[in-house]
Amino acid sequence: MSEQLSQLQRLCTETWDAFKAKSEFFKLVQDGLCDRRLYALLLIQTYHYTRHNAINQAMVCQNPKINDFNYMKYCLDHAQEEVGHEMMAFHDLKHAGFAVESPSVLPKPSLETDIFVAYVYYISQTGNPVQRLGYSFWAEDAYDHIMPTLQIAAQNMKLKKSAMTFFIDHAAIDQKHSEDVHKQILRVCKTQDDWDAVKTAMLGTLTLTHRLLEGIARDYSLLVQGKLPHHEFLGSETSFAEVVS
Amino acid sequence: MSEQLSQLQRLCTETWDAFKAKSEFFKLVQDGLCDRRLYALLLIQTYHYTRHNAINQAMVCQNPKINDFNYMKYCLDHAQEEVGHEMMAFHDLKHAGFAVESPSVLPKPSLETDIFVAYVYYISQTGNPVQRLGYSFWAEDAYDHIMPTLQIAAQNMKLKKSAMTFFIDHAAIDQKHSEDVHKQILRVCKTQDDWDAVKTAMLGTLTLTHRLLEGIARDYSLLVQGKLPHHEFLGSETSFAEVVS
Amino acid sequence: MSEQLSQLQRLCTETWDAFKAKSEFFKLVQDGLCDRRLYALLLIQTYHYTRHNAINQAMVCQNPKINDFNYMKYCLDHAQEEVGHEMMAFHDLKHAGFAVESPSVLPKPSLETDIFVAYVYYISQTGNPVQRLGYSFWAEDAYDHIMPTLQIAAQNMKLKKSAMTFFIDHAAIDQKHSEDVHKQILRVCKTQDDWDAVKTAMLGTLTLTHRLLEGIARDYSLLVQGKLPHHEFLGSETSFAEVVS
Amino acid sequence: MSEQLSQLQRLCTETWDAFKAKSEFFKLVQDGLCDRRLYALLLIQTYHYTRHNAINQAMVCQNPKINDFNYMKYCLDHAQEEVGHEMMAFHDLKHAGFAVESPSVLPKPSLETDIFVAYVYYISQTGNPVQRLGYSFWAEDAYDHIMPTLQIAAQNMKLKKSAMTFFIDHAAIDQKHSEDVHKQILRVCKTQDDWDAVKTAMLGTLTLTHRLLEGIARDYSLLVQGKLPHHEFLGSETSFAEVVS
Repeated sequence: MSEQLSQLQRLCTETWDAFKAKSEFFKLVQDGLCDRRLYALLLIQTYHYTRHNAINQAMVCQNPKINDFNYMKYCLDHAQEEVGHEMMAFHDLKHAGFAVESPSVLPKPSLETDIFVAYVYYISQTGNPVQRLGYSFWAEDAYDHIMPTLQIAAQNMKLKKSAMTFFIDHAAIDQKHSEDVHKQILRVCKTQDDWDAVKTAMLGTLTLTHRLLEGIARDYSLLVQGKLPHHEFLGSETSFAEVVS
Repeated sequence: MSEQLSQLQRLCTETWDAFKAKSEFFKLVQDGLCDRRLYALLLIQTYHYTRHNAINQAMVCQNPKINDFNYMKYCLDHAQEEVGHEMMAFHDLKHAGFAVESPSVLPKPSLETDIFVAYVYYISQTGNPVQRLGYSFWAEDAYDHIMPTLQIAAQNMKLKKSAMTFFIDHAAIDQKHSEDVHKQILRVCKTQDDWDAVKTAMLGTLTLTHRLLEGIARDYSLLVQGKLPHHEFLGSETSFAEVVS
Repeated sequence: MSEQLSQLQRLCTETWDAFKAKSEFFKLVQDGLCDRRLYALLLIQTYHYTRHNAINQAMVCQNPKINDFNYMKYCLDHAQEEVGHEMMAFHDLKHAGFAVESPSVLPKPSLETDIFVAYVYYISQTGNPVQRLGYSFWAEDAYDHIMPTLQIAAQNMKLKKSAMTFFIDHAAIDQKHSEDVHKQILRVCKTQDDWDAVKTAMLGTLTLTHRLLEGIARDYSLLVQGKLPHHEFLGSETSFAEVVS
Repeated sequence: MSEQLSQLQRLCTETWDAFKAKSEFFKLVQDGLCDRRLYALLLIQTYHYTRHNAINQAMVCQNPKINDFNYMKYCLDHAQEEVGHEMMAFHDLKHAGFAVESPSVLPKPSLETDIFVAYVYYISQTGNPVQRLGYSFWAEDAYDHIMPTLQIAAQNMKLKKSAMTFFIDHAAIDQKHSEDVHKQILRVCKTQDDWDAVKTAMLGTLTLTHRLLEGIARDYSLLVQGKLPHHEFLGSETSFAEVVS
């Protein structure tokens, strides 16, 4: 692995560690929360950002500066694999015991999700075409960072595997993706400007993802206080405990 | 095959026959033209429109009305296969004996090519998302309609196979594509409005392709009269004959 | 006026004259057609292309190659003036005696209108940012070319002024617009490439407009034969004659 | 003023107050910083986000959900007025004593500026078309909130009026804009969903602006430590003091 890629890897790990250390979202889970509604809030936002990933990944090919056929093929291939993954998050929401007919009745994305999605579109459509690899770089590896916490959640919230397909399957799929991303990064990054663009996009998307998770922690707190509009279908913790026991 | 698909097929064949009957481009070849510069003009415009195909095919996934994951995957898959095909046209231009360093020095697209490209972007980005299949429908079958004429050209213009990769390889590749397109059309066309959208897009792209060919015939006539700017690199017929003999 | 602008003007006039000489649409009117349904077909397509003009005019500012603040302001100003003009065409349709509740019930644009609209979007979004002035150049002057024919139509079809607001008002408004366009063209065209881009866009939009008119003549012929779907609200010539007499 | 507008106003003021209370950027100025390089960093980012404002304001008219001609005209008018304002920020940078030939040599936008710009494009192109008024709502009033701090900066950094045209002129221009924005909001907001969309966009853009300012404070700290790449042209505090005295 190149020195630049190792640096990127180290920066990614440091950034995750720094975020996790101060994260309200991670703290809620690690403190032993049993309320499955936090998981529901995570799945709702996961649904909302995931459904843009195939689209903005393909958009990289519209960047007038792109001129690398191999990279274009990679983008379209990767886009193709991402199609419909949001439905796994929606599936998990139902299998976790929440009564939702169809994605169209879900609450809107949070402000934090909108900001994240906006930024991914922006780095996909403009600037250095290689930069979107900075998002893929950490996204495909993310499961190493979140799996321990997810397992705690699964245990405390009594989540069955059938309610965790999005995170479990992505952890498996993304082993291969991760190698592809590393190979592409090493192939397309030819100048310091390319590496800087990838690094900035990695930091940008990682930062906004952590804000997205903090937004979920805030929304959970509002939900508990009965102050989160449009989420009545999540029920109360008690009523839910009855359903799943 | 459904009745609707058969109708589409018949309309396509009738439209080709009608166009070929009055086409100056086809007439030039069938009358025995030996001047390879007509083929060069065809390859230049083929280069120009082909390089948009992967991009606009993928754009169909951005249509807010699309909601069929299988069709989205088809579009991205098909887009992925189209990446870089313009280079085959450029390769053939060089192998046909014309001195061009890189695609960046080619003359601009003709007005007819611009109009064709504009329309394909428009039907890819707006309206009924299934309509772009109307372009694929005839494009993948086109070689049946043009191969006899291309063979006449090849013979008279003494074109080697190595200078015909775009058209020969597409004829082969597109056997499979053609089946895929038919399957998709039968799958996604659920209403009369869907079939109408596919039909209109088929007629639109086919009409504009024929105008594109007629534009090439007009440009050839200008070239012969020494009145086609930016095409000096094509040389004169005589000088060229010496080069290839 | 610069020599280049005079050349553009001459080319425009010649192109109009050539089109009018072979136009089925103009012939129908000049031969004394009394059937107001031809005018209705014209207004329907006018509605459809006009409603894109403000949008694509403003889009010129998104062209990454634009770097002329004065020209950007011109585009936005001109876009602002075009907003809602399609409603004049719709208003005229109703005042000509046709029962249409709202624009949403109008038949779809013709294929020719779609091709025209696609091309205007294309030249607005890509290529040399000055080229869209080639559309404005002739569009603002068009009334000189079509007014005599419109007056014949008005007389034979017994159209009141209140049913001709789109064409009458545009003839008046566009006097000033025309001067603005000439001024902008002289200001922004600095290289031969700029003048060529304006000329090509002028020819492209003018050609597609004439095809749009020919499409209307074809549709009228289908209508008379009772073969034009989705236009039942136009009634028959006879029933209409009763309404307006 | 409607109750909803008053609520928006109160929320805006509260948000500003909360941000200012914890802002490193505001603290730097209020603590009496004399180093004009902080102002330079502000102007560089101001240049970068301002140059998108006319473009994304006009883009609102491309939202397929827009159907209010008055609002479309407002967007284009307002876009037209914003054209080129980034040059005032660039002008001020030069008049504050920094040697920059042209905007093309400025350092790239910060990550925070990119995130802000991405979000403004997103809310301009998608979702409820009225929501971009949430950005205009506070942006036009912002000078009330920042003027006291700017005046402290002006005094301590010895900034002449000729180096403050962006902020001074905007304060004046925006009196009228502010009234226009209020009028538009009252006119276009018809449902609670409209008011919510405006409110969310106000909070989103305001939050990201404060992060943009905090990014400038962080960059200033890096600059002082000699660790901010691509900003050598800002010189050192001392060398600069010599230049301006």
